[in-house]
Amino acid sequence: MYFASDNSAPAHPKIMDAVVRMNEGYASGYGNDGATTQVRDMIRKVFEAPEAAVYLVATGTAANALALASLIDPWQAIFCHPTAHIEEDECGAPEFYAGGAKLLLIDGPDGKIDPDKFRAKATITGQLGVHNIQRGALSITNVTEVGTVYSLAEMQTLTAIAKEFGIATHLDGARFANAMVALDCTPAEMTWKSGFDAVSFGGTKNGCLGVEAVVFFDPDKAWEFELRRKRGGHLFSKYRFLSAQMEAYLTNDLWIKLAKHANAMGNQLAAGLRNIKGSKFIHPQQANMLFCGWPRSGHALAQAAGAMYYAWPEADHPEKGPHDELLTARLVTSWSTTPQDVERFLELIAG
Amino acid sequence: MYFASDNSAPAHPKIMDAVVRMNEGYASGYGNDGATTQVRDMIRKVFEAPEAAVYLVATGTAANALALASLIDPWQAIFCHPTAHIEEDECGAPEFYAGGAKLLLIDGPDGKIDPDKFRAKATITGQLGVHNIQRGALSITNVTEVGTVYSLAEMQTLTAIAKEFGIATHLDGARFANAMVALDCTPAEMTWKSGFDAVSFGGTKNGCLGVEAVVFFDPDKAWEFELRRKRGGHLFSKYRFLSAQMEAYLTNDLWIKLAKHANAMGNQLAAGLRNIKGSKFIHPQQANMLFCGWPRSGHALAQAAGAMYYAWPEADHPEKGPHDELLTARLVTSWSTTPQDVERFLELIAG
Amino acid sequence: MYFASDNSAPAHPKIMDAVVRMNEGYASGYGNDGATTQVRDMIRKVFEAPEAAVYLVATGTAANALALASLIDPWQAIFCHPTAHIEEDECGAPEFYAGGAKLLLIDGPDGKIDPDKFRAKATITGQLGVHNIQRGALSITNVTEVGTVYSLAEMQTLTAIAKEFGIATHLDGARFANAMVALDCTPAEMTWKSGFDAVSFGGTKNGCLGVEAVVFFDPDKAWEFELRRKRGGHLFSKYRFLSAQMEAYLTNDLWIKLAKHANAMGNQLAAGLRNIKGSKFIHPQQANMLFCGWPRSGHALAQAAGAMYYAWPEADHPEKGPHDELLTARLVTSWSTTPQDVERFLELIAG
Amino acid sequence: MYFASDNSAPAHPKIMDAVVRMNEGYASGYGNDGATTQVRDMIRKVFEAPEAAVYLVATGTAANALALASLIDPWQAIFCHPTAHIEEDECGAPEFYAGGAKLLLIDGPDGKIDPDKFRAKATITGQLGVHNIQRGALSITNVTEVGTVYSLAEMQTLTAIAKEFGIATHLDGARFANAMVALDCTPAEMTWKSGFDAVSFGGTKNGCLGVEAVVFFDPDKAWEFELRRKRGGHLFSKYRFLSAQMEAYLTNDLWIKLAKHANAMGNQLAAGLRNIKGSKFIHPQQANMLFCGWPRSGHALAQAAGAMYYAWPEADHPEKGPHDELLTARLVTSWSTTPQDVERFLELIAG
Repeated sequence: MYFASDNSAPAHPKIMDAVVRMNEGYASGYGNDGATTQVRDMIRKVFEAPEAAVYLVATGTAANALALASLIDPWQAIFCHPTAHIEEDECGAPEFYAGGAKLLLIDGPDGKIDPDKFRAKATITGQLGVHNIQRGALSITNVTEVGTVYSLAEMQTLTAIAKEFGIATHLDGARFANAMVALDCTPAEMTWKSGFDAVSFGGTKNGCLGVEAVVFFDPDKAWEFELRRKRGGHLFSKYRFLSAQMEAYLTNDLWIKLAKHANAMGNQLAAGLRNIKGSKFIHPQQANMLFCGWPRSGHALAQAAGAMYYAWPEADHPEKGPHDELLTARLVTSWSTTPQDVERFLELIAG
Repeated sequence: MYFASDNSAPAHPKIMDAVVRMNEGYASGYGNDGATTQVRDMIRKVFEAPEAAVYLVATGTAANALALASLIDPWQAIFCHPTAHIEEDECGAPEFYAGGAKLLLIDGPDGKIDPDKFRAKATITGQLGVHNIQRGALSITNVTEVGTVYSLAEMQTLTAIAKEFGIATHLDGARFANAMVALDCTPAEMTWKSGFDAVSFGGTKNGCLGVEAVVFFDPDKAWEFELRRKRGGHLFSKYRFLSAQMEAYLTNDLWIKLAKHANAMGNQLAAGLRNIKGSKFIHPQQANMLFCGWPRSGHALAQAAGAMYYAWPEADHPEKGPHDELLTARLVTSWSTTPQDVERFLELIAG
Repeated sequence: MYFASDNSAPAHPKIMDAVVRMNEGYASGYGNDGATTQVRDMIRKVFEAPEAAVYLVATGTAANALALASLIDPWQAIFCHPTAHIEEDECGAPEFYAGGAKLLLIDGPDGKIDPDKFRAKATITGQLGVHNIQRGALSITNVTEVGTVYSLAEMQTLTAIAKEFGIATHLDGARFANAMVALDCTPAEMTWKSGFDAVSFGGTKNGCLGVEAVVFFDPDKAWEFELRRKRGGHLFSKYRFLSAQMEAYLTNDLWIKLAKHANAMGNQLAAGLRNIKGSKFIHPQQANMLFCGWPRSGHALAQAAGAMYYAWPEADHPEKGPHDELLTARLVTSWSTTPQDVERFLELIAG
Repeated sequence: MYFASDNSAPAHPKIMDAVVRMNEGYASGYGNDGATTQVRDMIRKVFEAPEAAVYLVATGTAANALALASLIDPWQAIFCHPTAHIEEDECGAPEFYAGGAKLLLIDGPDGKIDPDKFRAKATITGQLGVHNIQRGALSITNVTEVGTVYSLAEMQTLTAIAKEFGIATHLDGARFANAMVALDCTPAEMTWKSGFDAVSFGGTKNGCLGVEAVVFFDPDKAWEFELRRKRGGHLFSKYRFLSAQMEAYLTNDLWIKLAKHANAMGNQLAAGLRNIKGSKFIHPQQANMLFCGWPRSGHALAQAAGAMYYAWPEADHPEKGPHDELLTARLVTSWSTTPQDVERFLELIAG
């Protein structure tokens, strides 16, 4: 009953096996090995993007900050949602990597940027010449940080506005696979066909030990990224161990299967929660993460039985009265969540 | 016959096994797991430093740049040798992490900082008040980048000068184990007993997949380091896979055994090279890396047989005439080098 | 009829005279001259702060960015109002000088930070350990960017909350004199007696050619500031020309007289505008800058007659109907505005 | 008898008069005034560069750091002489503005970069791909920091090598006028005709209060420079007071006349020093700054009489014996030095 985070799950055995298999003999360092060349080609194929520049790093923060720093100048803004990981959870990594850039927050319901607000902010940004920070990049997160999923149309609306203003576009795909499965689309549809210039393609939360790909669909930024990565200390000498993970992750659509399972567990959990008396969802559940409140008595029982998850007390409870003894939790399922875990958890909180 | 770099070797099986064993069940992320707590204690014990602050990162560049940035201010200098990894091989990572600091280069024979030159430079640095960059940190590398080893006395002389001037001290120990084995001393003697405030304790080049510890003997900088690490994208969510490596590395002195083997292979290689007609060492061989020239005919034969190593043409050949057909190579041995490899290589180059 | 900005006014003749008088003979550079020593003492006396560290720079952006960078670390936040000059008008100078810090925006009516919102944001900032940006400094602007004036009590409420959370406090006093005159208080009451650690004490907008003082009431940050100033290129070699301005500015309370005049002109202008049929203030007028809408016909007449000011179309017009042909303007008076200018302007727009 | 620095001299009366004259009425801020437009055109004319981008800032450090930051990326190197102002006297301003770039020092006699050493360093820089800092810009100083003057041919040799390697070129002209007068050439010959992309054109040391122009002959970097300047706090609101200085400086070749006088005073001083028994020049005197040793008895007499200059004890005295009681001084003449000053000084030190 571990719903604290998908990054608390172990690596999938096939991915671990690939790492073990990779540990044979010598290999050139820093990505100059055959396995890395091969995995870069696999990613290009998966994204139907033969010209894309493809890089592996070990953390999502590195992927996001390096990608964004390559897309903008230090005097430019990154437009993002107030709940974005780059705003809330990276201790200023984008500002650091981008040499003192600014994140401009664009609100909107359910963790998604409101297109009208984005257009309004894009319009006034940089309008006063050198006195203002300039337009830089849009970064959207899908699956969002509140567990919702942007539709393709929603993403396309935002990237189209960005293009109008000459704003670069970045997709934080820490949970890329979960969003794609929810949308039932292709990787290309999720990314360049929806107007993105660069994507952080996450592996860590979906069964890897620690690997994220950064893909630039326009390879103009490739060399700059490579220098930023090295200079950031993110170029691994034994790079093959990153490549091995990603190779196994992509082989036979393992990544899609894992995300499908995680989302299915999310669906099962949500279905059960809807039946809990007094439960209340803060946001619609659409993938493998959900925010839902239920009576404190149910929490007590679950926690006594060892269930792990985060209470989310800052979630908004506008309606008081019948619900004021609610406590909201964030629950995350993963490739390793079992139906039995979910079942048992639901039984516990039902009291 | 792979002598290109110790970071081209595979991971030691015991270390890989530990990673596999760690992949059981759920664990709190970001180092908040039991295995990480344990490995931090192991490191403190190994260094006889119960108060030390201990962190794991995945690359040597990250370890160096984060440690140095935590020791200095942006308007301060890092004193190092012109051949130092931080100067030559990190694409400006220390300058980046330290917010635009300056590396002041202090020359000296065999890759070692000359104490008199260091004292002279330390004396004039910052003497003109705000007009100059200020004194910051001394960083020395042991094993040096040219394969030599600072003696304890040599390190102590340099750190004592640093202390006189209020300069912090950092040891780049990417090949810490190889130096320690060469010096036949303890980890404490190599570090705080020799006057160092912080050390990058390398694992990657000596049998790990990718892990380095940063140890601060004065924990004052601990919190700053943690924030810098997160902000640099170097805090792993599945941190346990770093901890597993380090735990196996330290258990039963595996790290010392591996370094002893690597150095023994270095010794065997050096002994053989001394017998090669016309060979010439650029620097004394003292650990697992050596720079030696020998006739081009021998190079041709070795390379034809698939031997891997770097030619080092920029090495200085002051004596011409009998040696002008020499070509210098950098040769690095590792835990996985075999006596047979060395033997065969020596036979090949002997012609 | 020049109401575009107080920084479009000329320098006051007494200040220009002092610059001319200073131009006699040789003087040590970089602030090591007698006049600079003297003016630093004058400032300490004016602020009743004998221990304060006092520096002169030539622009308000330099004063703010250097002061804030000295108060915080790169992984910390500056709390400010969304309309703050540091957020809107400095092209990211604070982020640049502070090494990639983040500005956290705290809204509130009339350009003033809402204390409850500040407390709420301060509470959650840094609560998730290294994942979040940390608490750094509060910066408030008085006169605010919308022309209102924080009362002493309002400032004290905010700085008291800051102190509770260990947050440093900075006052952006680009229009310090105008606020102080409006509040009828002393410089000490405006600053350290109201809980501020550092102040940007503006001269440029109130009759100088270009000079601002930065005052740290706790001199701990003095040396850091000096290094940051030099490194930022803001240490003037012919520093005496900054000192001369400030000396004349402070002598015989010239600065207070100039601000009193500017505010009186603001009052006259506001009084007249209130009588204009259909006029509407966006914010209360309290010093020398006001935001007021009036019918477009009046704008046309004023502009035809050469009046200079900024239209402020983004100002909020919630009430439509009778007012929908209003256009809001920002009007700024200065030491050099004359009652006749104001009178004529009011006649024009009255139609 | 003030030979400490040319920046200790007052402003020339014609320049001060222009500042006073400029102080009439209102003017748009931030360089959007007519006088600024005019002075930018004057500079383009002086440099025979109708397309050049031209900016004014108040300090030489700002001019150099902003110009260089605009020419390079953070992962690139600035090649300069070890004695360069940007290396020795700016507290790391170039590293700060350029986001953590590296200064690579190229030695050579008399404060001038040795072309062969530059070629050698340019060749190996960046040769190891991402592991190395990359090639960025060459910065040379003329007049050098040791008072010598690069010939046009010497400058052209260096810029030609730079062009071969794709390295941008910057001239630090803090004493531009003194060098130009010594070379008897035109501003165009000193700059773009000698292969420079950008120049810091100093006014402060040659009779201004505080103004330097930055000129980009290729205006591609113009907008970037403007944003960097604003963000660095170097865009003056009352910009007209910078423009007034520069306008007077250029009118009727005032700048050339002032530099001719300063150099003539340097020549007179050098001629006299050559006649002092036991005197010894450290570098050839070629403009308005010289480094010369003479017996300590002469120093004592000059200082007793109030002469101001810097002793330069770190200058190299390879020859001992007859000279071991020498003390070297740096002496700088300026537009305000008089022949009588020089004469009296020479009499004093002659004993």
